[in-house]
Amino acid sequence: MSRLLATLLSSFVIMILAAGQPSGAEPTAEPTADKSRTLRHVVLFKFKETSTEADVTRIVASFRGLPAKIKEIAGFEWGTDVSPEGKSQGLTHCFLVTFKSEADRDAYLPHPAHKDFVAIVGPHVDKVCVVDFWSRD
Amino acid sequence: MSRLLATLLSSFVIMILAAGQPSGAEPTAEPTADKSRTLRHVVLFKFKETSTEADVTRIVASFRGLPAKIKEIAGFEWGTDVSPEGKSQGLTHCFLVTFKSEADRDAYLPHPAHKDFVAIVGPHVDKVCVVDFWSRD
Repeated sequence: MSRLLATLLSSFVIMILAAGQPSGAEPTAEPTADKSRTLRHVVLFKFKETSTEADVTRIVASFRGLPAKIKEIAGFEWGTDVSPEGKSQGLTHCFLVTFKSEADRDAYLPHPAHKDFVAIVGPHVDKVCVVDFWSRD
Repeated sequence: MSRLLATLLSSFVIMILAAGQPSGAEPTAEPTADKSRTLRHVVLFKFKETSTEADVTRIVASFRGLPAKIKEIAGFEWGTDVSPEGKSQGLTHCFLVTFKSEADRDAYLPHPAHKDFVAIVGPHVDKVCVVDFWSRD
């Protein structure tokens, strides 16, 4: 019985010590654990006043077509601003592209299909904001 | 037996009629299908040059504490910008808060815990951008 107690106690001590270990990763570095390999690529646009609804529809369709053309895209979603806070800075469209590595994101950026999209959206961009981040809880 | 068959058939007809109903929702309106009820609340910050690393750590910890205090938060993730594109407009921190309805987002905004966070971050904000969108493919 005392042996069982000792085993339980030592397991408990090991758990406490393990919990106190530094993770070894820099806060901004690429995570090494597979479960946390979610790189979010956030793209926000404000289109020019001269851009028509048809222009914007074509731009959105072009962006939405990328996941079928670029295998490195692990996730894709988008939508238009419905925030009541008035802090959108005029940005109306948000695209959330997910990658599993910076290498995949780096393959996406110069990909011909992405360059085609950039050529389509470029003339209509009044403002753009792009932030990539490794997703953490 | 014929009564059971009639019941089954009428149930089937009702299901078909229900499936054919228009949703009544505008493309940009809150989706009615439960599967697509993902409202993304994207928050981007640029902190003041006078804000210290300790200030930023405290701000991040405060934001990260909200899911435990506000039950309407359905998902939470965050990270710091690693984009190589140079289009972050100085915004360094991105928080992605997920809600299941606009009512949940509307409960979050004036929630005392959220107001406490806003009071903590407020003095350190150089630039902020908030965009909410209903997630679509």
